Amino acid sequence: MLTAHAYAATSATEPLVPTTIERRDLGPHDVLIEIKYAGICHSDIHTVRAEWGPAPYPLVPGHEIAGIVAEVGSAVTKHAVGDRVGVGCMVNSCGKCVNCRKGEEQFCLEGNTGTYGAVDRDGTITQGGYSTHVVVTEDFVLRIPDGLELDVAAPLLCAGITTYSPLSHWGAGPGKKVAVVGLGGLGHMAVKIAAAMGAEVTVLSQSLKKQEDGLRLGAAHYYATGDPSTFEQLAGSFDLILNTVSAQIDLNAYLSLLAVDGAMVNVGAPAEPLSVQAFSLIMGRRSFAGSLIGGIRQTQEMLDFCAEHGIGAEIEVIPAEKINDAYERVLASDVRYRFVIDTATLVS
Amino acid sequence: MLTAHAYAATSATEPLVPTTIERRDLGPHDVLIEIKYAGICHSDIHTVRAEWGPAPYPLVPGHEIAGIVAEVGSAVTKHAVGDRVGVGCMVNSCGKCVNCRKGEEQFCLEGNTGTYGAVDRDGTITQGGYSTHVVVTEDFVLRIPDGLELDVAAPLLCAGITTYSPLSHWGAGPGKKVAVVGLGGLGHMAVKIAAAMGAEVTVLSQSLKKQEDGLRLGAAHYYATGDPSTFEQLAGSFDLILNTVSAQIDLNAYLSLLAVDGAMVNVGAPAEPLSVQAFSLIMGRRSFAGSLIGGIRQTQEMLDFCAEHGIGAEIEVIPAEKINDAYERVLASDVRYRFVIDTATLVS
Repeated sequence: MLTAHAYAATSATEPLVPTTIERRDLGPHDVLIEIKYAGICHSDIHTVRAEWGPAPYPLVPGHEIAGIVAEVGSAVTKHAVGDRVGVGCMVNSCGKCVNCRKGEEQFCLEGNTGTYGAVDRDGTITQGGYSTHVVVTEDFVLRIPDGLELDVAAPLLCAGITTYSPLSHWGAGPGKKVAVVGLGGLGHMAVKIAAAMGAEVTVLSQSLKKQEDGLRLGAAHYYATGDPSTFEQLAGSFDLILNTVSAQIDLNAYLSLLAVDGAMVNVGAPAEPLSVQAFSLIMGRRSFAGSLIGGIRQTQEMLDFCAEHGIGAEIEVIPAEKINDAYERVLASDVRYRFVIDTATLVS
Repeated sequence: MLTAHAYAATSATEPLVPTTIERRDLGPHDVLIEIKYAGICHSDIHTVRAEWGPAPYPLVPGHEIAGIVAEVGSAVTKHAVGDRVGVGCMVNSCGKCVNCRKGEEQFCLEGNTGTYGAVDRDGTITQGGYSTHVVVTEDFVLRIPDGLELDVAAPLLCAGITTYSPLSHWGAGPGKKVAVVGLGGLGHMAVKIAAAMGAEVTVLSQSLKKQEDGLRLGAAHYYATGDPSTFEQLAGSFDLILNTVSAQIDLNAYLSLLAVDGAMVNVGAPAEPLSVQAFSLIMGRRSFAGSLIGGIRQTQEMLDFCAEHGIGAEIEVIPAEKINDAYERVLASDVRYRFVIDTATLVS
C-alpha cells in the first residue's frame, strides 16, 4: 500500500480539505502514476456536493489526470516507468460486453468504473486525481504524446474527449459548419478541436464578452444568443451544434438553426427534462442527440490529434489550497478556461 | 379548363360532400392524370377539420393518388399518355434552393407546394386526390411500376415514402434491429418495408390485438407496450425505432430501448411538445430525430423497391359515399390498414 497526499470532500456541504489516502499494491496489470496535474471539472463539484446523487465520503475528486509512470506491475506491456501518461473519467469496465468489445467502454453494460466515487472491482471506493499518486489498470492509462505539456494535457482527459468524440462521430471537418454553444471548459476545447478538424466554427454564447477569445481559439464567427436576431440570421445553417451548456435552453430555437440532416448534440445534462417539438425535428430530418466522453481507443486518438495540432487546454494552474476558491469561481464562470491543480502543492 | 368530379369539405365541422372542381389547362410541362384511386390519410382529417391551422374551403383532400396519364403538355418528356402514375404530398417546389437541388424537395426553403390546401404557383389553391382528375407538373409525377396494382400503390405515395425514407436514411437492413411503434396506416407499411430491406423487425403496439397481422406483414417479434415488462426485456436492443404514433408517449422509456448509436425517429408530430431527458440520449449516444415524407427521387426509388418486393398497402377500397364513415373509422383505428377511394364512384 502506498500513502498518497490528496484533497478530499468530507461532506456535501463542507470545503475540501487536505488528507492522505491509501493506493492499492500493484497487481500484475497495474500502473502506479505519480500525478503531476489534475484538472477541475464541473462534474467534480456536482459529485462532491451530492447534486448527482449520494456521494461516498471522504471523496477525492478529479478525473483529468496527467503524470509520470512510477512503477508497473509484472505483466504490464503498454506503459513503462518514466512514461508520460493520463487518466480520464474511467479506470475500468467489464471488458466483455458488446460495447466494451467495440471500444466504447463508457457505455459498458455493467457500468464502467468511474475514476472517483465508484465501487472498484475489488470493492473499494475509487479516489480521483486531486492526489499525488494513483494506481490504474494499464488498459485505462493513456499515453500523452511528446510535445503536449502535462498541465495543458490534463483537461483533455475529460473536456477534450467529451468534445472530440461527438465532433468526430458527427463528422466535423472541411465543408462542415459547426456551432459550439457555450465557451467554458468544454466549449473552448470544442472550438479548438473543431477548428483543427477543418470545420467552420461558430460560437453561440449568451453575450459577446468572450468574443475575442473565441476567435483567437479558432472560431470563424461569434454570436450572442441573448440577441434574438441571432436566431433569425443563422436559421437552418449548421450541420452540427454541440451544446456544452448544462442549463435549460430553448431547445426548439437551437434546433431551428440546423440545416437538413443536422444534429444538435448535448454533452451536458440539465437536471430538468427538455421540451422538444417533434415538428422541430421532422422539418429538416434533424436529430437531437447526446454523447458521453469517449472510449479508451478514441481518447488516445484524441490525445494524438491534439499533440499533432498543438492543442492543449487554456488553463490557470493553482495550488491545492485554492481548490475551494476555484470551485466558487467555476460556479461563477470566472475561469478561462480550466483550473488545473499542481499536485506538488499537495505535499505539505 | 377541365371539370372534375370530387368530394370536398366545405367547413371544419361538416361532412364532405360531392362537388365539381376546375382543373387548369395543361401548361407545357403539365400532366393530366385520370385518378383511379386515392388513399385516405389521417392528415386529410386533421387538415379539413382545421386542426393544423385554418383551411381554405371548399377543400378537396387526398395526397395518395394513383391513376393513368390522360394528356401531356407540349414539353413533357417524363410521362406519356397511358402511363401508370402517382402523386404524393407535394405538387411543386422552388427547384432552386439548396434542398431542392439535393432532391429533398420536401424541405424546399421556399416551402413545397402541398397537393391540397396550398397556394399553387399560379395563385390558386391546390385541390387533392378525392377527385377524378388532377393536373400536375411532370417533375412531381411518379411512375408506378408494372406489377404494382394502382389501388395498393396509392397509399405508398404518403404512407410508403414516409416510412421508407427514414428506414433508408438510418440504414435499416440485414443485421439491424428495427422497432416500429404503432401498427396503423404508417406502421404497417414500415413493417413491410423494413422486413423487405432485411432488418429484424419488432412491432411495439399498445396491445397484442394485431399481433397476427404484424407477424404476417413481416415482423419477427411483437410486444405490447401496455405491459411494463416489455421495456425491461427490450432495454438497449434496437438500432432504430420508427415512431408512427402521433399521440404523446413516454419518450424516455422508448429511448431506453435503443442500443448505442441508436436513433428513434418520429414521423408523426404530436401537438404538445415531448419531454426528453438529455441523460437518456447521452447514455448510449442516442438520437431522437424526425423525418418528413421524402424527396421525389427517393419516392420513385421507394415505388421501384416496393414493386420489386411485391409490397403494396393493405387496403379497404370504398366508394366515395363512404368517405365520411371512413373518417370516423380512421379516428377509431378501425381500419386494416388504409382506406382507398375508388374514384369511379365520384361520377354520380
